[in-house]
Amino acid sequence: MKLERILPVIGWLPGYRRGDAGRDLVAAVLVTIMLIPQSLAYALLAGLPPQVGLYASILPLVLYALFGSSGSLSVGPMAILALMTAAVLTPLFEPGSQAYITGAVILAVLSGLMLVLMGFLRLGFLANFLSHPVISGFISASSLVIIASQVKHLLGIPASGQNLLELMMSMLPNLGSISLLSMLTGFGVLLFLLAARRLLPGVPGKIVPIVAVALTVALTWWLGLDKQGLAVVGEIPSGLPALSFPAFDVGLWQPLVMGALLISVVGFVESVSIAQTLAARRRQRIDPNQELIALGAANLGAGVSSGMPVTGGLSRSVVNFDAGASTPASSLYAAVGITLATLTLTPLIAYLPKATLAAAIIVAVAGLIDLPALKRTWRYSKPDFGAMLATIVLTLVHSVESGILAGVGLSVGLFLYRTSQPHSAVIGLVPGTEHFRNVQRHQVSVCPRVTFLRIDESLYFANARFLEDRVMELVASQPEMTDLVLVCPAVNQVDASAMESLEAINERMIDAGVRLHLSDVKGPVMDQLEGTPLLTGLSGRVFLSAFDAWKSLQAAPVDQG
Amino acid sequence: MKLERILPVIGWLPGYRRGDAGRDLVAAVLVTIMLIPQSLAYALLAGLPPQVGLYASILPLVLYALFGSSGSLSVGPMAILALMTAAVLTPLFEPGSQAYITGAVILAVLSGLMLVLMGFLRLGFLANFLSHPVISGFISASSLVIIASQVKHLLGIPASGQNLLELMMSMLPNLGSISLLSMLTGFGVLLFLLAARRLLPGVPGKIVPIVAVALTVALTWWLGLDKQGLAVVGEIPSGLPALSFPAFDVGLWQPLVMGALLISVVGFVESVSIAQTLAARRRQRIDPNQELIALGAANLGAGVSSGMPVTGGLSRSVVNFDAGASTPASSLYAAVGITLATLTLTPLIAYLPKATLAAAIIVAVAGLIDLPALKRTWRYSKPDFGAMLATIVLTLVHSVESGILAGVGLSVGLFLYRTSQPHSAVIGLVPGTEHFRNVQRHQVSVCPRVTFLRIDESLYFANARFLEDRVMELVASQPEMTDLVLVCPAVNQVDASAMESLEAINERMIDAGVRLHLSDVKGPVMDQLEGTPLLTGLSGRVFLSAFDAWKSLQAAPVDQG
Repeated sequence: MKLERILPVIGWLPGYRRGDAGRDLVAAVLVTIMLIPQSLAYALLAGLPPQVGLYASILPLVLYALFGSSGSLSVGPMAILALMTAAVLTPLFEPGSQAYITGAVILAVLSGLMLVLMGFLRLGFLANFLSHPVISGFISASSLVIIASQVKHLLGIPASGQNLLELMMSMLPNLGSISLLSMLTGFGVLLFLLAARRLLPGVPGKIVPIVAVALTVALTWWLGLDKQGLAVVGEIPSGLPALSFPAFDVGLWQPLVMGALLISVVGFVESVSIAQTLAARRRQRIDPNQELIALGAANLGAGVSSGMPVTGGLSRSVVNFDAGASTPASSLYAAVGITLATLTLTPLIAYLPKATLAAAIIVAVAGLIDLPALKRTWRYSKPDFGAMLATIVLTLVHSVESGILAGVGLSVGLFLYRTSQPHSAVIGLVPGTEHFRNVQRHQVSVCPRVTFLRIDESLYFANARFLEDRVMELVASQPEMTDLVLVCPAVNQVDASAMESLEAINERMIDAGVRLHLSDVKGPVMDQLEGTPLLTGLSGRVFLSAFDAWKSLQAAPVDQG
Repeated sequence: MKLERILPVIGWLPGYRRGDAGRDLVAAVLVTIMLIPQSLAYALLAGLPPQVGLYASILPLVLYALFGSSGSLSVGPMAILALMTAAVLTPLFEPGSQAYITGAVILAVLSGLMLVLMGFLRLGFLANFLSHPVISGFISASSLVIIASQVKHLLGIPASGQNLLELMMSMLPNLGSISLLSMLTGFGVLLFLLAARRLLPGVPGKIVPIVAVALTVALTWWLGLDKQGLAVVGEIPSGLPALSFPAFDVGLWQPLVMGALLISVVGFVESVSIAQTLAARRRQRIDPNQELIALGAANLGAGVSSGMPVTGGLSRSVVNFDAGASTPASSLYAAVGITLATLTLTPLIAYLPKATLAAAIIVAVAGLIDLPALKRTWRYSKPDFGAMLATIVLTLVHSVESGILAGVGLSVGLFLYRTSQPHSAVIGLVPGTEHFRNVQRHQVSVCPRVTFLRIDESLYFANARFLEDRVMELVASQPEMTDLVLVCPAVNQVDASAMESLEAINERMIDAGVRLHLSDVKGPVMDQLEGTPLLTGLSGRVFLSAFDAWKSLQAAPVDQG
């Protein structure tokens, strides 16, 4: 049972039938067809040799099949992670150098270790701090940066930079040397991909890129376009990567830790939300902590096989799901597919124009830009919009890392600020009932001697002092008060700080000549408070309900205007 | 009105009467008598020349009188802040050097600027993140370190170090050269202070230290003990400090920022809790953000007058309060008192034995050690105890800074972890009523087709994904479910992330063939949700109450065993 939890394969393998295998195989073929151009393109985007993308699409898939809890998720290289990989590595290593390639491997290993550790420590909740508006803003902004980074391949000119500004500025001086062949290829493929739905009504949209790849490879080879100046992927080593673990070197690993953490968290959030969406359609459940372990294993696999950081990809996973993949075995079959491609297709890939891959990337990430989300968030919540905007602006004009860190920092800050000021309301009795309501919103009976304060949140150190303030403000503003009842129906928890604040409130109230009572205290909270100085020294009583307190304190009700 | 808020002096000065002045004067005399030995001792503790303590007890008091909202708080040097000052400065500057003294001034200025800024930005809530167990553990551990740091003066041997271990180890080799005179003086004063309550029954305990100071100064001068090897404070400059602002130098200021922040926050937390405790006894109220500004002004004042960081002191404030000080004018009078002392007493202070001050410090801080708090917190809450213990251990064996940072980090981490898993319960109808209760705790009616899930916390990004998990787990485990009602009486807030999670839940439930309903949605939350895709696309309905939903969904109740 326990082992099955860590190795879900034990759960599904014994019941695996021929029918499952058939569906999984069909799905795997489609995924393989999608994964070949994607893995090459995202390696290119990360500034890595194209074969690295293929390497990252073999062992990671096998390991995810063993450890993963989703039958539909297709792991592998992914656009946003590729951009983040480039963003982390470019300032540290010479692009294209062996050190840069090793950096990507270390990133994958570090990211794998972090994810596995988070999984075993059940720290999946940490990913929660990447709020929806921040991740949505981050993905939109990153996609724009990715598109800007691919323009150079469409135009056949050099360019470099970590953000929109740098990329544009670095292209300006080179606009004179645009390559017509690259432009024709790039924009041709772009138009083909955009029009594919009409041109090829029978072919599923998601596998059209492979058609574009095949066509441009054939054209390039046939017309010798590569010799006429069209930038192509070029010769890549055939065969499979040797398995090896990168040498440990503090000086090399340490600067990559922060980047690996961001890549891990972003990858995990994306992956788990795809897995959950798809699992729900079959009323299945995803265990986020198990997904951490599986994704971690996949990244470790990418690391030991000369790959790059991987995560679940949305479009591939949807195709996989729609084709009927029902077990992680489909990932295994796709790994076999990519292995075959790596062994046999490398001579052809040499003729693949970079402009083709750039066009495929642009079409893929353009679909990730979600401008309406900006408007939606603005309408719904200004603070959330603030965090989103900060993420977008910093990602566009500075770097992906600063964008995501600013977003997380702002949303955690706003969260801490909000929880430090819990909602509370002075309440009064609704005449003729036993119910109490906010005196500012309803016509209720109140008694000037007895104040009822309802607290609408758990009490912990973040808001304990706020409660002290609120109570002392009430006591100071109502000189005739003799009794205060704290009504606690929504208080699920009282930590040590809040308990001491309540004690302090009790003592200050004694000094001020006001008795403190509690009512509607939940069972578990009451258990915890039992025997504390708060209860033993409480100047008033603990009532079961506010109405009990009302009756018992013999309030002479006065109707409020 | 607005100006009065920032300058509370405008509020109380016009109504200031002869009677107020009389009480304030008496209180000020007592505070001055306490403040003279304390300010000298805490300057010594901070590794600063003794006059720095006096300087920090003049202008800060005047500024607090203008800006402060508490009529009882007595600001000035304070033991824990002095220890923190030494801890920040010692690794950076040669103790006793001019750079070290300038460092203390910069700390005061930085701390003042931070506090004023926090006050204007209304960031007082940040201090909440110093939870009670952490601050209590920190004060107990710091007090132990302070006592250990004073033993050298009692024994008349050199010692240095930032923590208990270092201090003890540095004293070991010098135990052979203990000064008998220092020991006699130190332990004599110690015994005198401890026995004072019995020896001098008429004298208030808090002003006994000045008697010890006067006696030992007289003895030292009369017997010429300083010439026989008793370590004394020695010649200090007479007269008042010149006002000056420390030159700005990034290299000098920047390493002090973190230390200044910790000093600010610890000083503020101590000060505001003293002020609130005393204000409550007169049913008055303290404005924490105004206190930030006042404490900031006091520290800026300390900075421009060659002082050291200051905050409110507990023992002095209590004496001030008990003596009847009713307005901040008593601080003004105490400032006059310290000014007179600085102008006239410096020749006498030269004969003051360091052992006397050390004994006074030890007696003062021994009262701050709260061992029962450890037991209390252990009993009350294990996570809180963990944060407390980490603070204590790191403060004792490493440094005050690491202690407090670990404590804050752990308690914020635990807080984030707890809020990421909000309480929720599947509920059922209590037969014969309209009330719903947790199915695991009560005998209630349930219907297998319709599940009621009550959510007991506001929904925000920290727990949004947890809710997704919880719901999908329920749906996966109950294949017969056709309707899910989210009962939200305790949901005070739904941020953009949580709203999108609810949307995702709604869409996944549609995929799974389950209708999603809401009930007991609070007014403000409903207003916010109006017009969102969640409500427009909701597969079910929004019910006023869970009972309405129960009736309307025509649940055929089945009694649970």
